[in-house]
Amino acid sequence: MYEIRTDLALEAHEINAQAGREDGIRTEEETIDGFLVTTVHVSAGEGERLAKKKAGTYINVDVGKSWLLASEGFAALVALLAGQLRRLFPSGFSGSALVVGLGNYDITADSIGPKAVEKVVVTRHLRTLNPQLYKSAGFGDLCAFAPGVLGQTGMESAEIVHSIVEAVRPALIVAIDALASRRLARLATTVQLCDTGIYPGAGVSNRRSELSKETLGVPVISIGVPTVVDAATLAYDLLGKDADEQAAAALLAGDGKDMFVTLKESDVITKQTARLLGFAINRAFHGDMSVEEMEELLS
Amino acid sequence: MYEIRTDLALEAHEINAQAGREDGIRTEEETIDGFLVTTVHVSAGEGERLAKKKAGTYINVDVGKSWLLASEGFAALVALLAGQLRRLFPSGFSGSALVVGLGNYDITADSIGPKAVEKVVVTRHLRTLNPQLYKSAGFGDLCAFAPGVLGQTGMESAEIVHSIVEAVRPALIVAIDALASRRLARLATTVQLCDTGIYPGAGVSNRRSELSKETLGVPVISIGVPTVVDAATLAYDLLGKDADEQAAAALLAGDGKDMFVTLKESDVITKQTARLLGFAINRAFHGDMSVEEMEELLS
Amino acid sequence: MYEIRTDLALEAHEINAQAGREDGIRTEEETIDGFLVTTVHVSAGEGERLAKKKAGTYINVDVGKSWLLASEGFAALVALLAGQLRRLFPSGFSGSALVVGLGNYDITADSIGPKAVEKVVVTRHLRTLNPQLYKSAGFGDLCAFAPGVLGQTGMESAEIVHSIVEAVRPALIVAIDALASRRLARLATTVQLCDTGIYPGAGVSNRRSELSKETLGVPVISIGVPTVVDAATLAYDLLGKDADEQAAAALLAGDGKDMFVTLKESDVITKQTARLLGFAINRAFHGDMSVEEMEELLS
Amino acid sequence: MYEIRTDLALEAHEINAQAGREDGIRTEEETIDGFLVTTVHVSAGEGERLAKKKAGTYINVDVGKSWLLASEGFAALVALLAGQLRRLFPSGFSGSALVVGLGNYDITADSIGPKAVEKVVVTRHLRTLNPQLYKSAGFGDLCAFAPGVLGQTGMESAEIVHSIVEAVRPALIVAIDALASRRLARLATTVQLCDTGIYPGAGVSNRRSELSKETLGVPVISIGVPTVVDAATLAYDLLGKDADEQAAAALLAGDGKDMFVTLKESDVITKQTARLLGFAINRAFHGDMSVEEMEELLS
Repeated sequence: MYEIRTDLALEAHEINAQAGREDGIRTEEETIDGFLVTTVHVSAGEGERLAKKKAGTYINVDVGKSWLLASEGFAALVALLAGQLRRLFPSGFSGSALVVGLGNYDITADSIGPKAVEKVVVTRHLRTLNPQLYKSAGFGDLCAFAPGVLGQTGMESAEIVHSIVEAVRPALIVAIDALASRRLARLATTVQLCDTGIYPGAGVSNRRSELSKETLGVPVISIGVPTVVDAATLAYDLLGKDADEQAAAALLAGDGKDMFVTLKESDVITKQTARLLGFAINRAFHGDMSVEEMEELLS
Repeated sequence: MYEIRTDLALEAHEINAQAGREDGIRTEEETIDGFLVTTVHVSAGEGERLAKKKAGTYINVDVGKSWLLASEGFAALVALLAGQLRRLFPSGFSGSALVVGLGNYDITADSIGPKAVEKVVVTRHLRTLNPQLYKSAGFGDLCAFAPGVLGQTGMESAEIVHSIVEAVRPALIVAIDALASRRLARLATTVQLCDTGIYPGAGVSNRRSELSKETLGVPVISIGVPTVVDAATLAYDLLGKDADEQAAAALLAGDGKDMFVTLKESDVITKQTARLLGFAINRAFHGDMSVEEMEELLS
Repeated sequence: MYEIRTDLALEAHEINAQAGREDGIRTEEETIDGFLVTTVHVSAGEGERLAKKKAGTYINVDVGKSWLLASEGFAALVALLAGQLRRLFPSGFSGSALVVGLGNYDITADSIGPKAVEKVVVTRHLRTLNPQLYKSAGFGDLCAFAPGVLGQTGMESAEIVHSIVEAVRPALIVAIDALASRRLARLATTVQLCDTGIYPGAGVSNRRSELSKETLGVPVISIGVPTVVDAATLAYDLLGKDADEQAAAALLAGDGKDMFVTLKESDVITKQTARLLGFAINRAFHGDMSVEEMEELLS
Repeated sequence: MYEIRTDLALEAHEINAQAGREDGIRTEEETIDGFLVTTVHVSAGEGERLAKKKAGTYINVDVGKSWLLASEGFAALVALLAGQLRRLFPSGFSGSALVVGLGNYDITADSIGPKAVEKVVVTRHLRTLNPQLYKSAGFGDLCAFAPGVLGQTGMESAEIVHSIVEAVRPALIVAIDALASRRLARLATTVQLCDTGIYPGAGVSNRRSELSKETLGVPVISIGVPTVVDAATLAYDLLGKDADEQAAAALLAGDGKDMFVTLKESDVITKQTARLLGFAINRAFHGDMSVEEMEELLS
């Protein structure tokens, strides 16, 4: 049977809610500064089974077409996302964090992770190189990198992340990745933050090993944005419950598996969304740093 | 009523053939070196009306997944496309040609034109700067440029092309552009060459004025490759003749119009296909230039 | 004898002033917002002969290390440069302008022109496409493009500019180009604006024909920034008047002519300076447009 | 006193030879396929002191303007460099190697390391993913990555390399880096291979910790190409032994330290030279892989 592919806990919940199965999944909605924030709590056991997601907290922020925001609106959204990110910090967190941008820089739909990393204001090295600046600026302790993809490095992302974690010993990992959604309307308009790490098969590329507290020994917050909808998923949705599954399967066979639905301006949108995520991270860790200050520090 | 969008004469013909309407459209098939070459002759009047294409010759080469070809296969395909391109040369052509790469360099799905231009070996300036080299190498007389897009220049592509044609007075124009197809299987796997020029609305971006012998006073050969399928077109196809059009329309309304179906590796594929087209043009105009020689001249 | 190479009228004047020759060259200095602005008036005849520059007004703004400016300082400098640019507008100017970015996008030291063009807010097309927006925003009438370089297009830049001018018929041309300086300290720290157009041999690449009112029929303001110092010029300066010219010539022969002195971070600095120039042009033509508004319109 | 800066053992030897000091440094010259190969053996103690280089073998290949080579000449040079690289393999080497590209991708003069890494055919992951292909192709066991720079990651390159080495446990490390030379004529025309690793201060950027067998526990071969000559070094050379050092120092003070001499086409040359190094590594490790096969595997 064809399996609907989604990385969003919100969508997994929608699928199950339609089917009348809700145990172990609890959802809250809130509107902040005009943005809808939906928090999905997946509990262990039944919740995990139904959601097909690890137990934990999944925050969906409906950011809309954020790439069209003027600078004031953009700054407000950066602050909002930073606040949501802080909700997922381990209690009592005041240590260092490692930001990891997963995916392939050269494939637009998979590039949001590495591109977001370019927008992170790293400060870890300043503690020793420039302690004055470090203290006076109210910086947090951030380092960041993009591990690349297997076909370019010969090494699993997870393998590289693991070795860097050993060396840096951060108190927290923030992993950024492209996601798959099942709804066209969510392409680039939803940011999912969760405290459960990252699991195989997310996004466009294949990832063979998970990044999580279990595997790395450090809490992992993941941030993701849907950049693709499977052509097959779209077809299935359109054909609906009455449709001939086989027809869709046949039509998409062979070609469909290498295709997806994406936004016409995805190159530009990906770049802008990567900036949004990088800036939200800066804001979450570096106190009240303004968008302008970030631009200056990154130029 | 929803209108199926395609830039391929071959597909227009398929639509009509299904409907039992064939007058004024004649099709020939031939297999060369394992590649299927389909030539569609659209005649004036009834042919134009049915095909919704200008009267002329449309050559479709089914190049398959050309980006996976090893170097020998690639060289063979370059030679094949060059031969098909020469079929469309005006009779007795021996003059200069201007290659125009239409589209937006920064939007992957629309970038095949400007990227192909980067792979064209230009020679027009050598006639005066280096006449020895020019003669001994058996070069044709080529110049090339990419006019950019309206939002970046403030000028219509057609307006810029027109003014350059006035200055350069070439005997032939070759215009390269991204196309829309209605079949997933044709994404990046079909090259269409035709002798009728380029008309508004082709490909991803909007183009307000045509490029044709009528408007420019010079014959225009166009080369196009489908890089997108409308999400709406896919939906329509899937839903088929029995389906509720309104359902598809509703589902896609708003969002669908900004989306399309594309290949997962479209960044890489676009780059490779642009190289294929540029090299085919070099081969068509510069005698027996080999792929290796082109690489050297362009490095 | 070795000829000192400079595109800056200011430097030509310095050379002559040292030699006690000043007739026909008049210089004014002014400090605005902390930036030194030097205006060199070259008069016809003796002035031209001594300055080796066309008669006209050359404004040098000592912008310092503008790439280090925080956003407030940057905005102030944009406004200052816009004001200086307006000083060179033809009297009674209220028409359209065409911005031309000369040079090679792919060679860092020669790329400031095409990269500045990417930062220009073009509006010419809005008059017809969106007259409401056009009027209410207080936009001027700008279009912009980069003609590329001979080796990539087969056409002279001047030839392309000429043909576009014929089509667009602007009331003014603003041409941006990389310059050569003879002083290390001026690399990327000086902006020269002049009302005399652009002449062969400026900057890194060769340009065979001038862009001027004489050749194009439209006034041409040029904006340039030194991005290179000839290695040979540096050597000559160091060796000074007492030195053995022949020694320098021998040492640099062969290799020296393909080399230049540049800044270690020239990639980043070029990008930032291109942004400065593009934004100054926007400010000069589009009323009180702020840096923030430009960023939004260009994103 | 001003210290002449060079990363080339060959140049260190020249300086000392002029001064009549040669103990502990032995040099051999050989011409292979028209390329001059100079091997400098630096012995422990006196050799190290004079050469200011670690004891070991330094091979200089005078590759000339390799970016102008036609494909046959390029293939021959790839094979020659591969052979020289194999001379430095630890005796009995048959294990896995990790290729590390040091430097900043975004600064042309410092980008040769990361750009070379993009041209390495990695195979480590194929042993498990595709053992058939792996065996039949005669591949060696390569993985590769670029650790980025401190200001972008917050982590020292050496720190990252160290942690990856711990994870991958290769039998050999090949580190690629940009070098400084003292002679203009050597810019991009010399490749230095040595078996002593990489030490602080090489190339354009600062590197705080060495990469060597002592620090990493694995033999480190380094490959470097001079991409810059200090403006100050050039000045010193020009002024010669009779010159007023103070004059040069004054002239270059402040500005000179941020400047260097480089080739006018350094963007293009760096890209081509990175390809040369990457391909030489492929050839050294992957048996008789041809340039064509590498192109196919990397496309």
